Amino acid sequence: MLNNLPHIRRRGLMLVLSSPSGAGKTTISRRLMKTNPDLQLSVSVTTRPQRPAEVEGQDYFFVSEKAFQKLCDANAFLEHALVFDHFYGTLRQPVEDALTQGQDVLFDIDWQGTQALSQSARGDLVTVFILPPRWEELERRLKSRAQDAESIVAKRMSKASDEMSHWAEYDYVLINDHFETTLHQVQSVLTAERLKRTRQSGLSDFVKSLKAG
Amino acid sequence: MLNNLPHIRRRGLMLVLSSPSGAGKTTISRRLMKTNPDLQLSVSVTTRPQRPAEVEGQDYFFVSEKAFQKLCDANAFLEHALVFDHFYGTLRQPVEDALTQGQDVLFDIDWQGTQALSQSARGDLVTVFILPPRWEELERRLKSRAQDAESIVAKRMSKASDEMSHWAEYDYVLINDHFETTLHQVQSVLTAERLKRTRQSGLSDFVKSLKAG
Repeated sequence: MLNNLPHIRRRGLMLVLSSPSGAGKTTISRRLMKTNPDLQLSVSVTTRPQRPAEVEGQDYFFVSEKAFQKLCDANAFLEHALVFDHFYGTLRQPVEDALTQGQDVLFDIDWQGTQALSQSARGDLVTVFILPPRWEELERRLKSRAQDAESIVAKRMSKASDEMSHWAEYDYVLINDHFETTLHQVQSVLTAERLKRTRQSGLSDFVKSLKAG
Repeated sequence: MLNNLPHIRRRGLMLVLSSPSGAGKTTISRRLMKTNPDLQLSVSVTTRPQRPAEVEGQDYFFVSEKAFQKLCDANAFLEHALVFDHFYGTLRQPVEDALTQGQDVLFDIDWQGTQALSQSARGDLVTVFILPPRWEELERRLKSRAQDAESIVAKRMSKASDEMSHWAEYDYVLINDHFETTLHQVQSVLTAERLKRTRQSGLSDFVKSLKAG
């Protein structure tokens, strides 16, 4: 082999981050994306209307129900679901292309999406659940989001509680007490999982070249 | 729950580092021990004679063949083996005590020891194999160890080659090109593995206390 840095070919991984709303997942996702050029965010396809602040192809791919159905019939989705009258789905091809090129894909999804993904992508999947350190902390964050009626806050809390009950379906569980510590922990999971023998598809060739000397 | 930092009870893990001699494993072990107070080195029992520089209870526990046989009969070993006329073994109790107390145990052992351990401790075991970046690098390091006869160096190289052929039996495979990078990678494996849901035995109680609020 050439006398330079060994670069081992590897298959990318699918990193899933889930947490009850308010536990800090979105901020962590953003920071991860910034510091990991090898990591790309999975963009879902949806039939729900585009909101003013949303960017096509960045937040979602917005399609009609007819178009969604066509994609579905063509088996183009890794997973898809109906949530409050609207369809959401993850396209199979962009994910598969990324993984083949050794790029990792980040999924900011809930327990339902995670369960669906794990049916079709077990070996590539790394799932992380982020818990809040204290219930009051979560309540505080959910309340501070807007000047909402108590009933809306209560609904959010109930949804958070439901989401939280699924922590035991994840590979890694983190408690987001100090943001920087949690970020470091998610980064460690990513670094470690990339080093798993089974993901480093170029290792066998590398060892052969080592011995050939 | 009390309004302070959540501390989640966890079961320790057994971190195995293996590599061909000369790939940097011992230096990495020492650095890991320094920066991880939760990590203790496993000390083997052996029947081979103590060398002048060696410290009883730190490098090995030195025992007679008769004492070794007694321990063996009492099923006191997690694994044991005969290597060049001398017995070596890992005591079960100190490891189990450490794991129960949430302490991790580091094993600086070869592929044979790793295979034996994996028979008796699969769920607690995390195995890391460290490869040299280049074959010439390994040769250089093995040669520089002493002014040895060519035949001795050749024997060492052959042993290194044999050890290296077992990389595919490990969970994680690292290439030690830059020492600090490799150290960071092993540390990431340790950090990530500690966060595995299955090792955090206190999580269930924690989530319950969260919800009780």
